[in-house]
Amino acid sequence: MQNPRILAAEGLGTALLTAAVIGSGIMASRLSDDAGVMLLANAGATVAALYVLIAVLGPVSGAQFNPAVTLTLGRAGGMSATLAAMVVAVQVAGAVAGTVLAHAMFDLPLLQVSVTARTGTGQWIAEVVATATLVGVIYLCRTAGRDAAGLVALWIGAAYWFTASTSFANPAVTLARTLTDSFAGIRPWDAPAFVFAQAVGAALGFHAARALAPETDR
Amino acid sequence: MQNPRILAAEGLGTALLTAAVIGSGIMASRLSDDAGVMLLANAGATVAALYVLIAVLGPVSGAQFNPAVTLTLGRAGGMSATLAAMVVAVQVAGAVAGTVLAHAMFDLPLLQVSVTARTGTGQWIAEVVATATLVGVIYLCRTAGRDAAGLVALWIGAAYWFTASTSFANPAVTLARTLTDSFAGIRPWDAPAFVFAQAVGAALGFHAARALAPETDR
Amino acid sequence: MQNPRILAAEGLGTALLTAAVIGSGIMASRLSDDAGVMLLANAGATVAALYVLIAVLGPVSGAQFNPAVTLTLGRAGGMSATLAAMVVAVQVAGAVAGTVLAHAMFDLPLLQVSVTARTGTGQWIAEVVATATLVGVIYLCRTAGRDAAGLVALWIGAAYWFTASTSFANPAVTLARTLTDSFAGIRPWDAPAFVFAQAVGAALGFHAARALAPETDR
Amino acid sequence: MQNPRILAAEGLGTALLTAAVIGSGIMASRLSDDAGVMLLANAGATVAALYVLIAVLGPVSGAQFNPAVTLTLGRAGGMSATLAAMVVAVQVAGAVAGTVLAHAMFDLPLLQVSVTARTGTGQWIAEVVATATLVGVIYLCRTAGRDAAGLVALWIGAAYWFTASTSFANPAVTLARTLTDSFAGIRPWDAPAFVFAQAVGAALGFHAARALAPETDR
Repeated sequence: MQNPRILAAEGLGTALLTAAVIGSGIMASRLSDDAGVMLLANAGATVAALYVLIAVLGPVSGAQFNPAVTLTLGRAGGMSATLAAMVVAVQVAGAVAGTVLAHAMFDLPLLQVSVTARTGTGQWIAEVVATATLVGVIYLCRTAGRDAAGLVALWIGAAYWFTASTSFANPAVTLARTLTDSFAGIRPWDAPAFVFAQAVGAALGFHAARALAPETDR
Repeated sequence: MQNPRILAAEGLGTALLTAAVIGSGIMASRLSDDAGVMLLANAGATVAALYVLIAVLGPVSGAQFNPAVTLTLGRAGGMSATLAAMVVAVQVAGAVAGTVLAHAMFDLPLLQVSVTARTGTGQWIAEVVATATLVGVIYLCRTAGRDAAGLVALWIGAAYWFTASTSFANPAVTLARTLTDSFAGIRPWDAPAFVFAQAVGAALGFHAARALAPETDR
Repeated sequence: MQNPRILAAEGLGTALLTAAVIGSGIMASRLSDDAGVMLLANAGATVAALYVLIAVLGPVSGAQFNPAVTLTLGRAGGMSATLAAMVVAVQVAGAVAGTVLAHAMFDLPLLQVSVTARTGTGQWIAEVVATATLVGVIYLCRTAGRDAAGLVALWIGAAYWFTASTSFANPAVTLARTLTDSFAGIRPWDAPAFVFAQAVGAALGFHAARALAPETDR
Repeated sequence: MQNPRILAAEGLGTALLTAAVIGSGIMASRLSDDAGVMLLANAGATVAALYVLIAVLGPVSGAQFNPAVTLTLGRAGGMSATLAAMVVAVQVAGAVAGTVLAHAMFDLPLLQVSVTARTGTGQWIAEVVATATLVGVIYLCRTAGRDAAGLVALWIGAAYWFTASTSFANPAVTLARTLTDSFAGIRPWDAPAFVFAQAVGAALGFHAARALAPETDR
């Protein structure tokens, strides 16, 4: 894998993932009167898009699309600090670009500021759980030699529903979601605590999975 | 597989499964006005979480997460009585911990008492059917050499809808669901009959599947 | 494969499939106010149950569960006329037993008479299309060496929605559905035309698929 | 692969795909009061039908069912201009036939004129994105040696929700959808801009995927 291709794939993948998260939220809230139906659509579109993007871009870049994954599993897998920093930068830029793309498709102002409150202890615990289990699932897929694409996507789909925060679990996408005043948004001043909880969760999940994985896999 | 890892994986897996069952029920009843949409979300989140947990923890512990499975298929597969008792104990403890975790994420009292009535002949028949077919599906997956993760999860998803009890089919999770006054709850005094029906179903499913499986597989 | 096991698996599989179709319809109409949500649940439960039943019982009996399949593909695959007649008999008996089981689980009268009208040219065309494509899908799975379980189940799921009859496509299950006055029912006097359309469709699908399949596969 | 079989499979597959898209839209709008539920059903039926059709007809014709795919990936894969023109012709004819079939099943006038407005910059950007990513997904599946059936179908499912146009992404199906005054319709005078956007997207996706794919795959 060469750096320019890795950066292009991580940027493009994170952009399309973010466009799917935000775009499907906009579509859902335009079409339905029931917030449960909206989250079914939002979660379903996210699962499908994430699965496909990991499957087709995985051979190009590893398909992380998530600084919490890059800075734990990517680094542990031998990615240099310089490359990891560049990857995180394109992930954030891609997430913002995906937000703009979603707004453009739905004829909305391209950059907005969310007013959706997402805060409180429960939400933060939820982000720790969501990110820890996401990192753990990827780790255990690797040690078990299983293809992670479907498992990661379905885990995120479950976590949309069972974590109180609907499972952001991704610092790049969290930042981008401050820029949309739609179903998937989060107020800018609520984002830092989410990102902090995600960092705690990523570290927790990484160490727990390493302790749990069969010894022969290490 | 070593005992400490088995116990950790069975406890963690049962905790996350229970958190998914209860948490998605809470989220669904907060968001939707239609109980059909609620059960779609609850079933979908359960299927996705169960599939992922079995897939990633299976290589660690066998991913039973269910005393009805451990005490039939686990024992028949050579697990010692001592280990089986320890596994069942961590499954129950994990299920209670998952309930507490779900409540913590949704800012609810950590331990509650359910007031949801689930009783009557139809419900008990349903639990016999759900547990018998669950055990049978796992048995036949083994004899056919098929990966059980997806099939078990989808069977539970179907049974959420076609058995009148929404398919508890798991004594550990049944006990934990007495401790939540939410969508997925069951009154404490209705639980013993459910567990008894599950025991009957597990025995029935085990023997029926053994009779049905191709001889060459035994 | 031995006859007693084949007959047991075809009877049990058709019973559980029918219980899933009828039971999920009862549950859906009890929970939801929106007929679209009801059919989503009914179709989803049917897809999941059908996939699992074909996957786990396929190695035992071939998992046909459907006289339209047994009398075309089963016979063409070398099944004797005697065995085929016995298989069809247990499929019909199993479908009736599954109907009774669904009613027992939901505390309803065990045998009922449907009053749901399903008739007219559009519905009959729909049954021809549904059965023809079902038989064609199974035929082409075989010639392509693909596992049919998931493809058959998903095709039925799609056909629930795009054929006007919600895709009965199975004479045994059609007869059983005359015996339930619930979401999935059909009036007894509407059933013969459905079964006739299914027979036409099965023959059509069988011959079209044979013409379409790559020559080297024949 | 021989030409008559290729043409038959492309015509039949496009017909059944179009019947699934239009038929499930009719069924959904008859059953539900919530447009979000309608699109969930429409998208779900499309994903399932598309997956099955690609899986079973792929070995016969390549299962393109889409002029935007045939004229980029088909041609790049060595299909002659004459055959490509014939394939596109049967795709269009098949899509029209599928529309007529859907109307026949639902007892509607066989040919209609849509009055559903689908126009504007956002919709056109959406069609560029939907078609570019569809072509890119297929391209990258090939270079990665992955089976495209499930990935293509799920990508379309996600794009139903996150692109503002619900992702037509297929010139043949777009033309046919001008002939139905139902949920999935598009006004005839809005179709040319959609087809133009699809052509732009197909070219864009083809070149972007070729630049992104690992060098060793080319």
